[in-house]
Amino acid sequence: TETGRRTKRARKGPKPCSLHEIELTVSELGLGYESDETVRFRYCSGKCIHERRNYDFVMEHMQLNNGSSEKGRRGRDNGKKDKARYAPCCRPTKFEKKMSFFDNKDRFYTIQNVSARACGCV
Amino acid sequence: TETGRRTKRARKGPKPCSLHEIELTVSELGLGYESDETVRFRYCSGKCIHERRNYDFVMEHMQLNNGSSEKGRRGRDNGKKDKARYAPCCRPTKFEKKMSFFDNKDRFYTIQNVSARACGCV
Repeated sequence: TETGRRTKRARKGPKPCSLHEIELTVSELGLGYESDETVRFRYCSGKCIHERRNYDFVMEHMQLNNGSSEKGRRGRDNGKKDKARYAPCCRPTKFEKKMSFFDNKDRFYTIQNVSARACGCV
Repeated sequence: TETGRRTKRARKGPKPCSLHEIELTVSELGLGYESDETVRFRYCSGKCIHERRNYDFVMEHMQLNNGSSEKGRRGRDNGKKDKARYAPCCRPTKFEKKMSFFDNKDRFYTIQNVSARACGCV
């Protein structure tokens, strides 16, 4: 719930960029394969605001990343969007090379760069 | 204007991530130094949508980066925000080690990691 989320956030502060994991079916990956096999999808999520450098502060000051239509909205966004925009990105620094599965017609597939293996503020 | 921007975008397509340069005074960097010396600030800007991998498509499908409050807004954003969110980030891969200048009281400063030296979709 909204209340629960707020409480949690207030207690812990914004979570730093890290690797997360969920279990889902291959179909749920949304890549177009029909398979009820479950896989572990690891992804990167969290904030990188503590890893900002002078570059990011200048970018924030100049609003160089902002489209003209967004400039006026900055104040209303309560800083949330801008923090993400003017900070390093929480992204995979390594991917799992392969993910293999059988689809529901027993065809074998191997797909690449699906799941993250390590995350970083880049 | 909105019309001008659309025309430009339709003609050229979204610009890929690359290094840009502007000349400004040290004061204009917004880092707190008062100096009318001009410096070249290089920064990274542009799209990385052509460098998406399976990971990014899964993230888009799962909306794992979306806060619950933003989910409902997705359709209205015309895809712009989501493209940025579910693609690699256009970020500096190298920084200029140093930027040196005198402030308006003739004090000498050297600051680091201000200007980008190379960009990439990370």
